[in-house]
Amino acid sequence: MKITPISGFPEYLPAERIVEQHFLDIIRETFELHGFPSIETRAVEPVDRLLGKGGDADKEIYGVTRLAGEETTDAELGLHFDLTVPFARYVLENAGHLAFPFRRHQVQKVWRGERPQEGRYREFTQADIDVVDVGELAPHFEAEIPLVMAEVFAKLPIGRMVIQVNNRKIPEGFYLGIGVTDVIGTLRIVDKLDKIGPAKVADLLVESGLTREQADRCLALAAIRTEDLSFVERVRELGVEHPTLDEGLEALTRVIDTGMANAPGALVADLRIARGLDYYTGTVYETQLVGHESWGSFCSGGRYDSLASDGRTTYPGVGISIGVSRLLGLLLGHKMLSASRSTPACVLVAVNDEDSRPTSTRVATALRARGIPCEVAPKPAKFGKQIRYAERRGMPYVWFPGAGEPADGSATGPDQVKDIRSGEQVDADASVWTPPAEDLHPQILRAEA
Amino acid sequence: MKITPISGFPEYLPAERIVEQHFLDIIRETFELHGFPSIETRAVEPVDRLLGKGGDADKEIYGVTRLAGEETTDAELGLHFDLTVPFARYVLENAGHLAFPFRRHQVQKVWRGERPQEGRYREFTQADIDVVDVGELAPHFEAEIPLVMAEVFAKLPIGRMVIQVNNRKIPEGFYLGIGVTDVIGTLRIVDKLDKIGPAKVADLLVESGLTREQADRCLALAAIRTEDLSFVERVRELGVEHPTLDEGLEALTRVIDTGMANAPGALVADLRIARGLDYYTGTVYETQLVGHESWGSFCSGGRYDSLASDGRTTYPGVGISIGVSRLLGLLLGHKMLSASRSTPACVLVAVNDEDSRPTSTRVATALRARGIPCEVAPKPAKFGKQIRYAERRGMPYVWFPGAGEPADGSATGPDQVKDIRSGEQVDADASVWTPPAEDLHPQILRAEA
Repeated sequence: MKITPISGFPEYLPAERIVEQHFLDIIRETFELHGFPSIETRAVEPVDRLLGKGGDADKEIYGVTRLAGEETTDAELGLHFDLTVPFARYVLENAGHLAFPFRRHQVQKVWRGERPQEGRYREFTQADIDVVDVGELAPHFEAEIPLVMAEVFAKLPIGRMVIQVNNRKIPEGFYLGIGVTDVIGTLRIVDKLDKIGPAKVADLLVESGLTREQADRCLALAAIRTEDLSFVERVRELGVEHPTLDEGLEALTRVIDTGMANAPGALVADLRIARGLDYYTGTVYETQLVGHESWGSFCSGGRYDSLASDGRTTYPGVGISIGVSRLLGLLLGHKMLSASRSTPACVLVAVNDEDSRPTSTRVATALRARGIPCEVAPKPAKFGKQIRYAERRGMPYVWFPGAGEPADGSATGPDQVKDIRSGEQVDADASVWTPPAEDLHPQILRAEA
Repeated sequence: MKITPISGFPEYLPAERIVEQHFLDIIRETFELHGFPSIETRAVEPVDRLLGKGGDADKEIYGVTRLAGEETTDAELGLHFDLTVPFARYVLENAGHLAFPFRRHQVQKVWRGERPQEGRYREFTQADIDVVDVGELAPHFEAEIPLVMAEVFAKLPIGRMVIQVNNRKIPEGFYLGIGVTDVIGTLRIVDKLDKIGPAKVADLLVESGLTREQADRCLALAAIRTEDLSFVERVRELGVEHPTLDEGLEALTRVIDTGMANAPGALVADLRIARGLDYYTGTVYETQLVGHESWGSFCSGGRYDSLASDGRTTYPGVGISIGVSRLLGLLLGHKMLSASRSTPACVLVAVNDEDSRPTSTRVATALRARGIPCEVAPKPAKFGKQIRYAERRGMPYVWFPGAGEPADGSATGPDQVKDIRSGEQVDADASVWTPPAEDLHPQILRAEA
């Protein structure tokens, strides 16, 4: 049977997977430091639930059916295409067992049948945090959520990430203040700025019924981007008044102010950000890797007044999601990151001959008992060959049982350990020897940009 | 839309997920200590690859298709039902990039359309380790692989697990030695011992063409189970001679001998074990939780002479797989395990009033900087209410900024931290205070059996 990769379903070699694990470990650790417990939801949801959400996501759903299934009464199932729809369902299903405001993180694969391209996959991993409450959600969460992500980005071995924040009420109030009533339609056109530029956006706005002057003022609003609170003054200079605009400016001020206090430079007010999805109602987030703005947003989200509702109770929420596979795929694809070795093992314990394998195994057991990952050589080959085995996998050390000079009157010598990068070989005792901290686990190496 | 669970697709509440994460962390940490890097394979494989393997697995496969898919030339895809078939494909696909002998671990969800029942799911997590080599595989790996699992079980908060080991060559040589030529057919019948008992197995063997004496001798072999090497003598006492039997006894001796030296009591020779799957050719493993033998095997595997083959090169391997969801589902379902809290947060930082939230956030940042997971209270409610918020989630500590007695001449007091279990409240400094190690992360609690 011929073996060919399946387009859109990337797989990593062990060294690449080590980079991915490093990312996922930092993400989880940071989420947990901020008190977000993990949940996982099943990979499948009823298709009618998937179809009801996420705009035109219906085109992207993978259906799932038992191949040998006799006729059943089971609901038609599909693979989830994000983690928000399953989370909303989870909240409704388990509301009686959850304590609100409920915060959770969720790191799972999702599937979309989109056309694969660079950094766009059909199977990919997302890492989400959300806070939901019953009835009302305190506004401070809108500042807290992006700060968790800012901490993740500061810990990841990548360049500077900037989280761009806006509040949907700002363009909404502004548009209404200049007499534009089709807020959603106007937002949709302004959202194309990155793709088609301001001149074409202005033309489209005029085509949609705005005057040239209204169009220019929409573009002026969208051009405002500040790292501090001066966006308020910049908006005021445009001379538009509307209570919704005031609400939006006040809300965004709170978020940026908290950002400046806790993570200077991580958050910017960017009044161009709208997010395509219609269910965001307040703060919205996008994220760019500085110097790679054309790669688009790696981390997006926002506030929704109704994340979930069972008809009686409404659950407002705020959340943000990192596209882990997208980010990693681009960084690995552009050789911007690599791992120092393709195995967790730090030490290869050499085997003198097959009969003495138990001796080598005892050394390995002693090292592992102190948290040092290691492997016993597969074959009692010549030492040069055993060293090459370690070298091929990037393991920094080879351990030679009994290789040292025997003390006077002793039949066997002490063990020795060789740093195969420097060639240095010294006497060592498996019950006390410890590698330098930076060698214990694989290092993630960042290529110079 | 009505929300109902989907049978066979279990989901955990946050506290249960914390138990699962603890299991998965120990599994990964142990696999890595033994030098097994992680890989993940895509969730889907071409259906014709899935159908070719794993016996009658075809009945269990979930097919995957794009719901809005126009006609495509894409291969028909299905969700993988184990991690061995995808791993074999991964080895063939990436052979040029892997260093052999290649070891890997893999912890992923798999899907089977079987009828759900207690401890049997349609979506579940497996944790596998395998070693594969090119052409030939050194026999010592057959002893190394179960010892990794024995270490996992020793670290998990569960009762004693016993890994039962056999070698397929023992029954094969024995059967041939007593003149029984349908080895597979006979193995299949003997494999029913647990379900139908020795009397019925003997009858079935006679029906299949064995003499009553042959049947009795097969049963005598299957009854042998020893924690040491005495199984060899017990087999010899049955007076059967065959070169394949000798090979099998020698191979099993090596495995049990290594087990006795490195993990006393973890491995037993159990000559009843056969494993249903036909591709195992040497050592085979099953695992029982002592006192819960009726729950069946939680961890099984064995050696296959041909894990994968591309027609020119054959890759023999040995592997073993823990059914994580099966094990957890039963332990949680029988209330044998729980988590001490439903959140990673160890501390709730109280908020005096909304204006002083930045003060509370600074405390949280200082605690997190030293690895202490915490959460800032969602509302500046009465302190009793904030304490109850922490209590409901099982967080052991609440932090009160500035709650202590001000020193002479000082306007504000020092912070205080309260252990809400004991009620003890003491002055504390967020830049140095550290909780006891056992409070830092949620504890996994084992109910008395």
